[in-house]
Formats: sequence, C-alpha cells, structure tokens
Amino acid sequence: MLTRKDLEVARLGDCPYDSPLKLSTEPGDGLPDYVADDACIPYQVSNVSEQQKNNLFFERAGPRAKLFFPPRMATAAIVTCGGLSPGLNNVIQSIYFELFHRYGIKRILGVRYGLAGFDPDNGEPPVEMTPDYVDGIQKFGGSVLGSSRGKVEPEVIVDSLEEWGVDMLFSIGGDGTLRGTHEIARLALERGLKIAVIGVPKTIDNDILYVYKTFGFETAVDEAARVLSCAHNEALGAPNGVGLVKLMGRDSGFIACFATLASMVVNFTLIPEVPFDLEGENGLLTMLRDRLKKRGHAVIVVAEGAGLDHCEGDMEYDESGNIKYSTMSKDIGVFLRDKIKDWFTEKGEKINLKYIDPSYIIRSVPANSGDALFCNDLGRAAVHAATSGRTDMVVGLWHNVQTHVPLATVTRGKKKVGTDSMLWLAVAEATGQPVRFRKHGGNC
Amino acid sequence: MLTRKDLEVARLGDCPYDSPLKLSTEPGDGLPDYVADDACIPYQVSNVSEQQKNNLFFERAGPRAKLFFPPRMATAAIVTCGGLSPGLNNVIQSIYFELFHRYGIKRILGVRYGLAGFDPDNGEPPVEMTPDYVDGIQKFGGSVLGSSRGKVEPEVIVDSLEEWGVDMLFSIGGDGTLRGTHEIARLALERGLKIAVIGVPKTIDNDILYVYKTFGFETAVDEAARVLSCAHNEALGAPNGVGLVKLMGRDSGFIACFATLASMVVNFTLIPEVPFDLEGENGLLTMLRDRLKKRGHAVIVVAEGAGLDHCEGDMEYDESGNIKYSTMSKDIGVFLRDKIKDWFTEKGEKINLKYIDPSYIIRSVPANSGDALFCNDLGRAAVHAATSGRTDMVVGLWHNVQTHVPLATVTRGKKKVGTDSMLWLAVAEATGQPVRFRKHGGNC
Amino acid sequence: MLTRKDLEVARLGDCPYDSPLKLSTEPGDGLPDYVADDACIPYQVSNVSEQQKNNLFFERAGPRAKLFFPPRMATAAIVTCGGLSPGLNNVIQSIYFELFHRYGIKRILGVRYGLAGFDPDNGEPPVEMTPDYVDGIQKFGGSVLGSSRGKVEPEVIVDSLEEWGVDMLFSIGGDGTLRGTHEIARLALERGLKIAVIGVPKTIDNDILYVYKTFGFETAVDEAARVLSCAHNEALGAPNGVGLVKLMGRDSGFIACFATLASMVVNFTLIPEVPFDLEGENGLLTMLRDRLKKRGHAVIVVAEGAGLDHCEGDMEYDESGNIKYSTMSKDIGVFLRDKIKDWFTEKGEKINLKYIDPSYIIRSVPANSGDALFCNDLGRAAVHAATSGRTDMVVGLWHNVQTHVPLATVTRGKKKVGTDSMLWLAVAEATGQPVRFRKHGGNC
Amino acid sequence: MLTRKDLEVARLGDCPYDSPLKLSTEPGDGLPDYVADDACIPYQVSNVSEQQKNNLFFERAGPRAKLFFPPRMATAAIVTCGGLSPGLNNVIQSIYFELFHRYGIKRILGVRYGLAGFDPDNGEPPVEMTPDYVDGIQKFGGSVLGSSRGKVEPEVIVDSLEEWGVDMLFSIGGDGTLRGTHEIARLALERGLKIAVIGVPKTIDNDILYVYKTFGFETAVDEAARVLSCAHNEALGAPNGVGLVKLMGRDSGFIACFATLASMVVNFTLIPEVPFDLEGENGLLTMLRDRLKKRGHAVIVVAEGAGLDHCEGDMEYDESGNIKYSTMSKDIGVFLRDKIKDWFTEKGEKINLKYIDPSYIIRSVPANSGDALFCNDLGRAAVHAATSGRTDMVVGLWHNVQTHVPLATVTRGKKKVGTDSMLWLAVAEATGQPVRFRKHGGNC
Repeated sequence: MLTRKDLEVARLGDCPYDSPLKLSTEPGDGLPDYVADDACIPYQVSNVSEQQKNNLFFERAGPRAKLFFPPRMATAAIVTCGGLSPGLNNVIQSIYFELFHRYGIKRILGVRYGLAGFDPDNGEPPVEMTPDYVDGIQKFGGSVLGSSRGKVEPEVIVDSLEEWGVDMLFSIGGDGTLRGTHEIARLALERGLKIAVIGVPKTIDNDILYVYKTFGFETAVDEAARVLSCAHNEALGAPNGVGLVKLMGRDSGFIACFATLASMVVNFTLIPEVPFDLEGENGLLTMLRDRLKKRGHAVIVVAEGAGLDHCEGDMEYDESGNIKYSTMSKDIGVFLRDKIKDWFTEKGEKINLKYIDPSYIIRSVPANSGDALFCNDLGRAAVHAATSGRTDMVVGLWHNVQTHVPLATVTRGKKKVGTDSMLWLAVAEATGQPVRFRKHGGNC
Repeated sequence: MLTRKDLEVARLGDCPYDSPLKLSTEPGDGLPDYVADDACIPYQVSNVSEQQKNNLFFERAGPRAKLFFPPRMATAAIVTCGGLSPGLNNVIQSIYFELFHRYGIKRILGVRYGLAGFDPDNGEPPVEMTPDYVDGIQKFGGSVLGSSRGKVEPEVIVDSLEEWGVDMLFSIGGDGTLRGTHEIARLALERGLKIAVIGVPKTIDNDILYVYKTFGFETAVDEAARVLSCAHNEALGAPNGVGLVKLMGRDSGFIACFATLASMVVNFTLIPEVPFDLEGENGLLTMLRDRLKKRGHAVIVVAEGAGLDHCEGDMEYDESGNIKYSTMSKDIGVFLRDKIKDWFTEKGEKINLKYIDPSYIIRSVPANSGDALFCNDLGRAAVHAATSGRTDMVVGLWHNVQTHVPLATVTRGKKKVGTDSMLWLAVAEATGQPVRFRKHGGNC
Repeated sequence: MLTRKDLEVARLGDCPYDSPLKLSTEPGDGLPDYVADDACIPYQVSNVSEQQKNNLFFERAGPRAKLFFPPRMATAAIVTCGGLSPGLNNVIQSIYFELFHRYGIKRILGVRYGLAGFDPDNGEPPVEMTPDYVDGIQKFGGSVLGSSRGKVEPEVIVDSLEEWGVDMLFSIGGDGTLRGTHEIARLALERGLKIAVIGVPKTIDNDILYVYKTFGFETAVDEAARVLSCAHNEALGAPNGVGLVKLMGRDSGFIACFATLASMVVNFTLIPEVPFDLEGENGLLTMLRDRLKKRGHAVIVVAEGAGLDHCEGDMEYDESGNIKYSTMSKDIGVFLRDKIKDWFTEKGEKINLKYIDPSYIIRSVPANSGDALFCNDLGRAAVHAATSGRTDMVVGLWHNVQTHVPLATVTRGKKKVGTDSMLWLAVAEATGQPVRFRKHGGNC
Repeated sequence: MLTRKDLEVARLGDCPYDSPLKLSTEPGDGLPDYVADDACIPYQVSNVSEQQKNNLFFERAGPRAKLFFPPRMATAAIVTCGGLSPGLNNVIQSIYFELFHRYGIKRILGVRYGLAGFDPDNGEPPVEMTPDYVDGIQKFGGSVLGSSRGKVEPEVIVDSLEEWGVDMLFSIGGDGTLRGTHEIARLALERGLKIAVIGVPKTIDNDILYVYKTFGFETAVDEAARVLSCAHNEALGAPNGVGLVKLMGRDSGFIACFATLASMVVNFTLIPEVPFDLEGENGLLTMLRDRLKKRGHAVIVVAEGAGLDHCEGDMEYDESGNIKYSTMSKDIGVFLRDKIKDWFTEKGEKINLKYIDPSYIIRSVPANSGDALFCNDLGRAAVHAATSGRTDMVVGLWHNVQTHVPLATVTRGKKKVGTDSMLWLAVAEATGQPVRFRKHGGNC
C-alpha cells in the first residue's frame, strides 16, 4: 500500500540562492513561471472519491525560484549503468546543456562505463565533459560515456564522489542501478555530505513502479513492431508458417503488448504476468494448431520473462542481481521454438517456424522522436531537482506531468501489465486470444 | 471559461441491452471490467485546490455494460474528411474490427471521399465494408475510403443517413469537419433520429481544444524532425548556410516546437502564438545575422501560421472554412525565404539559404507505432461510445485517460502553445532564442 | 573451364509470330528497338587479349521481334521456392504485368508455396492471377504466392504443367531450385512438350555462378549494414565491448564483405572462402585481444558458412539438399560467441560480448529501390525469353547487361569471393585484418 | 565521336617508387595483385563487331606497383564543390584513409567550403585533417568540409596549391567543378608543377558522360521513390487526386526514370530528353484527364529540366555556370502545378492536386549502403590514380570496372536518357505513357 510518506522527497537543506534562470514570478504575464516548491499532483485521477480518500500526491518536477547550491560553483557527475537503451545520449546531452548553459555549472564529470568508473582500482577515470563532447550525440544509439552491469560498493562510490568534489550525481539506470543509487544517497547523507543524488529511470521494459513511462520504451516498441512485421511476412510466406519473436520484458510484458497493438499482426502474445499452459485443450499448442488449420499462418510474441515455469533448471543471476535469462536451458524463446517444432513433428504435421530474437538490435538504435523529446524533458527536470537540493529520488512522469519520486519507493517492486487492464483487454481483442490462458489456477 | 455543462455528453436514451463483450462485472477478480457509466476524470490535476474549486470533470471513455443499440442489429457508417493525416487507416480498421468482431455489427458503410460521399448528386455511393477491405490497411498512409475538403449541407447528410438506415456515424476529421459533425448530430436529434454521431478528432497540428493529443501528430513530429536534420546538413554544408523549413501549424505551433526539441538542431522556432519582428535590434534578421557571425550556419523552423502579419494581402478561405495559406503572396515560408535573401543581399553579405516545405510528404506517410497504438485506442473508444448511445461528442484524451467531450466544446476555439508553458520554455532553451521576440506590444 | 557450349541457350523451335510490342525495327530513329536474336556480350572485358582468345559470349536478354508462342494464347505459371528474399513480390509483379499488359497473355497461374504446389496430393491448387492480385504487392516483403523448401519429383511437376496446359514456367528460386528447374526443363523436352522453362535466380547470398548480381542481395546488404551499426553501438557502449554478428552466406561471403564496406565499423570479417585459426599467434582470438587492448571495443562479422572446420559434428541436409547450418552444434555464430567468451574467461579477462543473428529480419523486408528496379528488369527479361522460345535457362546480368545463361551452367558450382579480388582487398583495408588469416596451409 | 585520343589519360612522369601496399606480383597465388599499368577495358561490349572496329578502351583504375610520388612524403588536398549529394563524407573518408593508412601520407589538407577555400582573400584556410576528423563521418549527410558553388580563378587556386605544397588534389564536384578542375590541371602542367589533379564526379543527376554511375544517385532514387509513394497516397486519398512531384534532373531524367521504376506508382514521367505537348489530343493535359476518368487518381513526376520550352522568360545562370531553374517564373514544377489546376478549373472539372518538391530533403541524407560502398571504391581508386602520377582525369565506372577518364572528355556534354533505350522503354511500360509524347517534331 502506498502511503503519503512513501511519496515524500528528501531534501539536502534550505535553498538560499536565487535561480539564474530568470523565469517570471508573476503568474498570468504570459511568461513561463517557476514551479512552486510544494507543487504536487494527485496519485489517483480516474476515481475522484478514491483520490480524496487516499490523499496521495507526487511532488511536481520543474525549475525552482530558490536553489540549494550557489549557481556556477557546483560540480556534477553523470553515470549510465546497465544495458543500452535508446535515449541514453539524449539524457546525457540534456543534463549537460541544462547544467552548463542554464545554471552555469561548468565542471561536469562523465563517469566511464557505469559504476565501475567510480572504482579507482578497476575503472577508467572520469572524463571532464565539454560542449563539444556532447555535440551531436543525440543522433546516436548507445552511450557516449559507456555503460556496464557491474556492482560497486557504495562506500567506494561515495569515496570517489567526495574525492572528486561532486555536488550532484545523475545516475541513469534500471531497477538494480536505482537500488544502488538509493544506497549511495543514504550513505552520503549518513556521512553528512551534501550531494544531490538524482536517478533517471532507464528501463526499456517500462517496468518502474509509479512512473508512467521510461525512456527507450517507445523506441523499443517502434523497432519491435517492425520486427513483428518481418515475422508476419515469414509466416505468410510458407505453408503453416509460424513467426516466433522473443521480445524484451523480464518481469513485465509492456513491450510485447504495445508492439502487438502497434503492428496488429500478432495471434498470441505471451507475457510474464499471464501464465499459460502448453499442452491440453486450452494450451498454446492446441490453440496454435487450430489457428494454423483456419488461417495457415500465425505470429507469436513472447516476452523473455513469460512462461518461465516451463523452462526447467536453476536460476542464475547477473551482476546487477537480475535473473540471467540468457542461459540456453532457460531461454523461453529457444524453448518454445524447440517445443513447438517437436510437438508438431510428433503429430506428423509439418510447420515452418522462423524464430527471431532481436534484442540487441532494438537496444542500440537511436531514440525515436518521441523518446528524444522525453529524454530532453527528463534531463532538464533532473537538473532542476538537483539544483534545488532534492536527493534520493528519481524523475518520473504521472498524468503527463513530470514528478519527483523517492528511490526507495520506485524500487520496491516492478510495474506490471494488469490482467484486468484496458491494455490487456486490447491485446486480447487484437490477437483473438483469451484474457486468461489457464482455466484454473495461475496467479493472475 | 469552461463550465460543468460544457463537459456534459449527450445521450440518445436508456441502455436496455447487455453488452456482448462479456467483461467482468466483479472488481478485483483480475479480469477487465466495464467502465462505470458515470466514470469521470478531473479537468485539472496539477493544482488540486483549483480542481476542487472548479469541480470540472470529463466523462471517461470505455466499454459499458449496458448498450443503447441491440447488439448485432445496428448499421454503422465511417467517413474521413479533410487533408490526410497519418493514422486514418488505423482508425478506420480499429472501428471496423471493434464493431464487427466484438459487437457483432456486420453492416458497416464506408463513405467515399469525405462528406461528398453523402451527397447522392455528386458523390460515389458508400462501400459495404468487409474484413478483407480493411485487412492490412494499417500499414499504409492515406485513407482507404478517400477524403475531401468539400462541405455538404447537414440536411443532405442526414437525409442519406436516414435513407441508408445508419445508426452510428463515425466522423473522422479536423476542426471544420467536427463543426459540421455537430450540426449533423443536432439535426438528427431535431428530427428525432436515434443516430449516435461520434467524432474522432483528426488534426496533424494537435490543436483541438480539451484534447491532449490528436492522431497523426506524433508521426508528423517524427518526419518533421528528420527533415530538420536534413536542413541542418544543408546549413552546415555551405558558408553562412541557412536551412529554412516550413512546417504545418496554422493556428498552433505544436509540430514546430516538438520537432525542434526532438531534433535539437534548430536555432529559431517561429510559431503563430508568438509574434516576431523582422527588422530592428530584436528582429529575426539581426538575430540570424548574429548567429551566422558566431557559428557560420543556422536552422529556422516556421509554422505555416506564424508571422502572418508580415504577409500582406487579403485572406482567402478554403471549402472547410479554413484560411487558405497556400496562395503564394501569403505563404510565410516563401515570404521569409525571399525576405532573408533580399535583406542579406542588400547588406552585401552572402548567405546560402535552402528552403524546404515538406507538408505533403509528412501527411501521407503511415502512422508510426505510437500513433498506430493511439489510433487503435481511439477506434475502440469511439465504438464503445456509439453503442452505449452517446452522440454529438468526440473521443479525447486527458491525463492519459480516454474521454468523451461534446463537439460544441472542442470546436469553440483552438488549442495553443502557451507562451508561459514549460514547452515554450524548453523550445527557448533548446534554440537559445528569447521567450519573447517582441519587446513591446504583441498579443502574447 | 567455361566453354562456348556452356553458354548456348536451348530454344523450343522457330519463331514465326510477330511480337505485339510494336518496337522499332529501324535503328537510329530514336525509338527502342528489338534486340537481335543473336545479340551477345563477351564473358571477359577487363582483359581484352584473353577475351579474344576465349571467344566466350553470353546471349543478351531483351524483347525479340519474332516469337515462338502465338500472342495472347499462351498460359503461364509462376512459382517461388526456398527461403524468402527481398524482391520476390517485385519479380512476380513484373512478370505478371509484362505478360498481361504487353504480350496479352491473360491466363497466368500462381503456384502456391513452392514446388509443393505442383503436387496434387499435397499442395494447394494454383491461383488464377489477376491484375488486382498483384496490385501493390511490390511494397511488401515475403512472397504473395508463398514459398517452401520441399522437393517434388520432376515427373509430378511436368505432369501438372501438362494437365494445366502451361506453356511457360517462371521458376524463382536458389541453387537447389534451379537444379530442379533444369530437370523439369529437360524432362519436358524429353516428353516433347513445348514449355519454356525460365529460371530467375534468387539467392540473397549472391552466389550464383556467371551471374553478376541476384535480387535481394542489395537489400540484404542495406539491412545488414544497419545491424552492424547496432553492433558497433553495443561494442562502444561497454568496457571491452565485442559486437558479434552472424550474417547470411553459406558458401560465399558477399553479404559479409559488402556490409563491412557499407558500414565501415567492422574489425574482423570472416567468410567461408578464407579459413582462419582461432588459437595461436595469428588466430582470431589473439588478434581480437590485441584489438581490445588498443581500442577497447571490436566488431566481428561472420558469414554462416565461415570457419565450419571449427564446428564439429556430422552434417545434416535440408530438403533442398543444402547443408543445414541451423543445428545448434554447428552454428558458427553461437560457436564463436561461446568460444570467445570462454577463452577470455579462462584468461581471467572480462569482455562484454553481444551476439546478433538477424537472418529472418533481413530476409523478410521489402526490396529497397535498387532491388525493386532490378526485379523489374528481371521479370521483363524473363518474359521476353519465354515468349521467344528460350528454355532451360536463367536471366542473368553481366557487365550491366541482361543475359540468358543455361541452367546447367549456373548450377555447377557457387560464385565465391576471390581471395585475390579487389573486393577482399578492400575488406582487408577497411577492417585492418590480414588478407590471409592462416600463414601456412588453408585452401585459399 | 569518341576517339582513342579522348580516352588517353595524362601522366605526370615516370614512376620510380615501389608501392608500399605490398600486394602480390605473382598472378594466381590467391592474393590480390597490382593492376597492370596499361590495363584497360573496352568502351563497347554489347556489340562485339563494333567494339573491334572502334578499338576504344578506358584505362583501368586500381593500385599500381610503381608510384610517381615517393611514399609518405607527399601532401594532399581534398575539396568538395557544388550542392550536397549523399556520399560526400564517404568519399572524403575513403580518400583520407587510403592516403593515411595505406600510402602513409600524413599531411592532408581539407579545403573549406569549395573552391572559395583556395582564395586567401575570401575563404577560410584549409584544415589539417586527422583520423579523428573523419571518424564516423560516413554516417552523416552533408560534407564535413563544407561546399559552395562559387567559381574561383584557376590562377588563384594553383597559387594556393603551390604555396601549400600540394602534390595531389582531389576535387569532388559536378560538371561545372570538373571543368574548373580541368583548367587547374592544365595550368599546373603549364607552370611545370607536378600536381596530380584527380576529379571525383559528383552529380546526383547521374549525367556525367562516359561514367556509368555517379555517387549519390542511388540514394537519391531511394528517397525519391519514397516521396513518390507519398504522392501516390495523396492521389489515392482524394477524388480526382493528382500527385505532382518535381525531382532533380536539369539535363537528364535518370532520377525520374529510376524512381518511377523503383516505385511502380507513376503514370506520367516527364524528362528533359523527351519533349511533350501540354494541349491537344496527345498533350499531357488530355492524357491526364483520360487517366482520371478511368482510375480516379494519377501521379506525375517531372524532372526539373523537363518541358522548359513551356516556361517562358529569360534564362539566368548560377555561379557554376548552370542554368538557374529555381527562379519562380521558370520552375517547371510550379508551372505545371498552376497550369494543370487552371486547365481543369476552366473546364469546370474539379481535381485535387498536391505538389511536392523534395529537392533538399533528398540531397542532404546520408548515403545508402549501395552508395556507401561505391564511394569507398571511388576514394581508393582516386588515391591509386594520384599516387601513380595520373592527372587531369576523373575516376569512373564502366561495365562495373573502375576506370580513369580524362576531364576534358567527361565535361564535353551530358549523359542523357536515350529515347531508344531499354530504360525509357521500361518507363513507358511502367507508366503506360507513350514512348513519344509528340507526334510530329520534337528533337527526340
């Protein structure tokens, strides 16, 4: 249960300095104003009585009139962690430009290759960023700073922040990284350091709690929809053609669902939130066979975290603490590919299955224009938050308004596709599959 | 001023029939529910005290448990009006599939070439749509039904609706069309006809009042950003290179602003909402010259409705009642192109200006995945609204929730880029241009 | 050794009928002429003395003044075989339009799902094609007729051709299909049937002997280069990042070489024609390690048929008689991925390898404009060849002129990337790798 | 008439130095060889008897065993002139890499903004290029050196070459530039300077004599075909919809023809080589009207140099000596747009014409993979030519083999679409238009 306390954002202290942004302080004069320091927006809007009962609000993001750090004097650091996601360079550029051009902060360190860059024993030293360093990077996929999955002890990181004289840390990463960032923020506060630690949630899967949308997701859906169209062509081009596509989505099926709706060529969308049987009357295999009998071709999308109960073997974990799905015996895409082929072979029926795993192709493309815009906003909001002394928080989005949300709150679970949501209903309608695959049981 | 009455949606009558959608009626069972008939969301969220004072709410869109029309018996008609916009085919397909597959409505008429298709004297008869007719159309730009700008008397249209036995009309079009659709809805009610008249707002400019986003806009920004990148290459490739791009935006500069932020290569963004001087110290020409002196190249974006005070001559109107901007003497793009060239020539300074007007290239592409998804939602929501007996309304979007809004309300003005908005501030930051171009006067 | 006889194209008999194309027969009148029946172009052009010695010529393709078949009376059949390749639909459309609009041949059968469509016991009956059937198909990937890899006895096929009254067969397929097509042509001649059997070589690998370019290849290079750019971003984005991409190319490395040159981001290009060692001083692994030490990242491209000596296990064959490379134990991409990871792990050195296998994504896209043009030409030339009574041949391209080449000649081997070619030299220069990987031995 | 003398390439003198490329000198050893100094390929291949009669040969391009310049000691300069064309950066990069990495030439000057960069009074000084300067530029449209149209006296240019100590000049530009380059080469020889002056023909129109293909052309066709698809959607989307697209092509209609065939959606293709009447029975207007009556929509492509006899007014010339087609009164696209509209208005018939002029959007995109490959080859061949002491020549392509052609020869006219060519026949077939528009007269 979300409480008011969960949405309270930590601050480093009072804000004595005037913002150098020179926005209007006079509402209604037709010029942009600063955002009031206590501005907020309600958690719940679609049910007003619930809203009034809960009385839950997110703090609004945006430029503040009064700053915690004296303008022009602070030092900032930017780090990108985990796997690639479209838009990393856009966020880096936006943070840099806002700090440099608007707040006059000239010393901005680019931490190399993720958290490893804080470790003096193993990492490369940070780069002193310049306007040239970020010029044009928004056009490229990847991360100009480099990224990595490795974990580094918070002590080591805070030591480096202290040594480098960093006042603001912008940490761009996924669930694991944000948990680490929370530890950094806590440890810095414990040590009495006035460091604004701001997270920018980066998950191509769009599974961050209390955040409507994460950057890279929209581009991923774009690319995934293109791949689904390829799978559709392959399925149509062969007798009993089956296009099977594995998409990203370890815990949540957002990419699979959105790409299904964007392409309108999918017949089965399998996501982690909805268990499914393989065998039996309502199992995937029988439904697939019926589809092939009726229409001669089929397209299946499976999120990488779907149907893991069908993949036996022990779980392994990567360095960010996420389950390693790549190990062959547990890859649901490869598993389904083989299972489907074997099942039809046993039945003496011939199908033509083409399996596509586009993961890295999707992660490494440049941001599309929607994500480019969004990353721009994220970078600016992150800087406004840091300069006004917020810490231990991420920049979020709620009801299309940018928000501040405590790191501890966004990392206590994963956002999921609700099986009772309009989204899942739309997927069921678009594919023709049932809302529930399993008649009895299942945890959905 | 918006009042509660402005947001009240007209209904044809009681809803005695059970929906055939078989959604859950038991909240919390993990299955999608019907939307309560009186569900709503607040107009205002970012300022809670204002919200409580106003007490303004939009009706929520979505499937209802009880329907006005008996399932399977109704006849529907779909019409697309005005210029092309990416996503028309997606909306058509989504409406068709929802009607056909979910509500069992088999007689669906496709009106040919806009409102002209209702005129028995001048138009082609409607096509009886089939699943094959809409199969695969989501992959194409344009409109499979054809479109046109012509106006037709409401009497003629309602006569045809009556003659064809139409129960639900889905009218996809822009501001002018929606005003016409309102007249159709009113006239049908006057005649005592039980026709659900549902508008789907189509404006690539995204300038519909009380509607957060219109379809086609996102794709337009995508394409426009690509063109800006071309203009940037042209500007960089020549000494004192100037790339000048005219984008859509008769009354509102949303496309120009969003494309500026998506590309991050623009130096001057000119929109209808913000008047600018050409000559003088703070005029565009002097600022452009300063920019060229400093950096050797510049990119200018101008929305087609910007700076019209600089283009002399009488206004002409097209058949939808919109100002005709295409006449050469009033085309701001061509005007600026010539003005800039002449001004520098007079100064004896040499520039290399490349002018790009990509309008039709942008309008006719297929929807990108964001718009494809959105059009899908729009089509389904429009059908839910019609079957549950709503009329004289459009399907909108507010705080990321789909809504119903009366036609009369959305057509009483145009949505504008606020000069005090975070959007305009972001554009000013991205370009380096002032928030206001004119020191004194101007209506911004 | 190629002999004059190898290039002689079989004919069904005399050509008594006037072509309905109404081309000019008067050279120099500024109008297109028929191609002389004995027009030819030399095999060798870059070495003129060799040319005169060899005296080898290809028959030119193009419209003939005199036809074997009476116009308007013939029946044609089109079949597409094997895996997808971009441009299939363009070739189908071009053949159809040329037959229908230019030669007045109205009965054109579309054989479903490859050679299986000739088998009355197992296949679907052919479709009677119409102009609507092929309208707009050039915009799509895949094959509107469907394809398959299955082999069918020539007797069964010729039986069906006879039963259906087919006068011209257009067989679009790869090496295996063309060998089958040769058998069909031979058997038809043996039976005294006057069937023009024309092959259109389809191999995305571009490995057909005596044919400069096959359709789909150019599009494949386009898409492959895009994927290489993704791999480059992945490699740059991680410490010791390695992007490993497996591309098509069972026997020949053309796609790998061209994509390397088109992208200019590759460091190692491994093709079937050039053996390489893994271990040892000049082995791939040591060279990769050196590269990572120097630059911190690397991109490797491997054609699917490269380095097969490193993949142990028995060979399996698919139904077209090609080696099955897909079996996991023999997949060079997966093998290299694991080998490289293990080798560095053993050394206690950490790398970040991302493996991409884009095969089906490349095969199923629509033709790019270069291929679209080329497919157009191929279709027309195939029809000219058939109507003028050629048989047992393919439509080829040589020195940018379209040619006729006997099926027996093009199927007696595979075209390879010469290790002494300017192409391979260019790849060596672009990657920095040696022209030869193995100091001693190797069959290159 | 072409003579043997026209194809003889000038040389600076003997070649005493060994090439540092270390290619094989032993044919048949499976390693790439140097190209023999007198290697050649025949002008004519499709007609062998003509070939033997003419006895015309192009000199082959490629690496020579012996060089004119001592390796590692020379200074090179690169200049890009005229309008943008996709691939400029690729050519620059390829020349740079071949000089730097293969021939060990380290002093390479990048001349800024075209020929103006040679003028010490008006231009910027050249940049000393480095590997970093050209790193990654192949991914971008435009020219990293900048370009311009201005003409500069050959004396001024040769003065600068002398002053800077330039041994090799690589001049990338169109017809006008190549004529200027010829003058530079002549003047340098007159002054007794040993400067290798090598042209790389750059014309998006593909209209250079005796050169099969120029870079940028293929990309232009790609982009143009995309625009035609937009025009088709616009035409289909309105009653009597007409999509009118103006494409590049001042003297030659290659882009218009190729884009027509690549898209297969065009009904009228108007090129400079084929005069057409507007009025009268066989005029464009009547044919367009017939088409609209039959099919309800039409797409027209017009090359910018087509039908200029219909555009009255005096000709103006730009600084490169080309006719200025941009002046409004002589723009055939705008002229046709207005003419067609007026003609139908006079007839009281309603059409919906959408006019698209995509010129700068096409010129400024990055090279597609076909052009990227080609530019790579061009750059390398240009360097081989220069190091081996060739001068006053361009790098060409003939029968898919790279060639050397004297500058004087390629600039004495323009390559045209033959009205008797298979290309024009294919366009006539694809559009359904007659091979000749004018019954009597016309210079075709």
